[in-house]
Amino acid sequence: MNETIKHQLNHRSIREFIEEPFSETTYLELMEVARQTATSSGLQASSIIRISDPELKKKIATICHQEYIGRIPLLLIFIVDQHRNNAIAKAQGIISDGAAGMDSFFQSFTDACLMAQNVVNAAESMDLGTLYIGSIHNEPTELCALLNLPPLTFPVVGVGIGKPNQNPALKPRMPMRLRTFENTYKAPDNILESLSDYDELMQSYYDLRDTNRRLDSFTHQVAKRINAHNPTRQELLNVVRDQGFIFRLK
Amino acid sequence: MNETIKHQLNHRSIREFIEEPFSETTYLELMEVARQTATSSGLQASSIIRISDPELKKKIATICHQEYIGRIPLLLIFIVDQHRNNAIAKAQGIISDGAAGMDSFFQSFTDACLMAQNVVNAAESMDLGTLYIGSIHNEPTELCALLNLPPLTFPVVGVGIGKPNQNPALKPRMPMRLRTFENTYKAPDNILESLSDYDELMQSYYDLRDTNRRLDSFTHQVAKRINAHNPTRQELLNVVRDQGFIFRLK
Repeated sequence: MNETIKHQLNHRSIREFIEEPFSETTYLELMEVARQTATSSGLQASSIIRISDPELKKKIATICHQEYIGRIPLLLIFIVDQHRNNAIAKAQGIISDGAAGMDSFFQSFTDACLMAQNVVNAAESMDLGTLYIGSIHNEPTELCALLNLPPLTFPVVGVGIGKPNQNPALKPRMPMRLRTFENTYKAPDNILESLSDYDELMQSYYDLRDTNRRLDSFTHQVAKRINAHNPTRQELLNVVRDQGFIFRLK
Repeated sequence: MNETIKHQLNHRSIREFIEEPFSETTYLELMEVARQTATSSGLQASSIIRISDPELKKKIATICHQEYIGRIPLLLIFIVDQHRNNAIAKAQGIISDGAAGMDSFFQSFTDACLMAQNVVNAAESMDLGTLYIGSIHNEPTELCALLNLPPLTFPVVGVGIGKPNQNPALKPRMPMRLRTFENTYKAPDNILESLSDYDELMQSYYDLRDTNRRLDSFTHQVAKRINAHNPTRQELLNVVRDQGFIFRLK
């Protein structure tokens, strides 16, 4: 097994970092990796907002309901960016809403995610810790305002990076035979039974942590999450439209 | 610079592979990497369809208008999968459409992309070639039917992997100073001027290829693409709804 894969198999979310300024050399190296990431049709329609202002960081931490986000050494927000390419077309006299269509949106969204994971892999290869931050979608409209995101942009995911100041255990995942299919999707006959071993494993994992908390089985976690989903977040598509994207629904 | 980053900075799309069966050992190693990929709230709501049936591969190549896809040694389609977690909740008596909301959709979409890029990085670390296939969205409804994708699933992106049988030049990308912002989005005053050096570089890159074709500058490519966008693909959101997701538009 090579070093890249060793790091990939050792991925954990790191929430506490050594408090020191992030190395600019490392930052620029990570951005070169971002730059070379695969991009749909070569259009490079995603961008990155680096949050360096401590006050802004704290505001984002509040949106995310996670105070430790205010202390992350390098905080990056990956965004859909069709604004730039739309401006490029307009400056050449093109009158078309092509950049505002949902195909363009999904291409950019994918570009932003690929770039985020590429940066995460680069950071982890340097023994840095990383954290994905999906909770930026708790208040997407507020976040767009805070970052002055213009039309045809949209915040996709946040990533925190720094030297880890904790060493959490590897979280067990369900076996890949439950997540891979050959040629055709096929759900298992008894979904709960197919996950019973994993449910046990998940409970023992939490038992091993240095807390008194024993967490739920995976299937209970899923049930709770689905039952208690956040209604505001489920309305996310309204914000996509507010940002100027055109749905073309039939 | 470490080996991981060396590989990342050397990313190219590979379209021609040595025609031989893909190693099962390597496949399983890639799937372990997929398994350990970061996942929103630990919900693991994405899956992979491996296309091994040669006839199915050709049908997908037809959808993509790229015949070489029919010859890719390992062809994977990464999908949104809220079907599994919805079934897990239902089997426990939970009556909630939480898995069908757009927040759940975007979380799964992100999960699928992160998994794809993690697998691509693993494959490239083993000196394999990779290809992202976004053109599966040319005919998303047909693709869903071909793969028997049930409600609450959606095809995100395809990835081809194999031993490369070509060695294309590294494609130049725009400088990251145009794609990164500090604390606030700020578009350049003159977008075409800001890209003039890159436009020149892009043209010389194509000049160096072993073809007589001299391609357009980047800004011309963008203008053409936006002007000639595919109207069917821009209606992609209809297919998301057809697959059972609920938009909750205001």
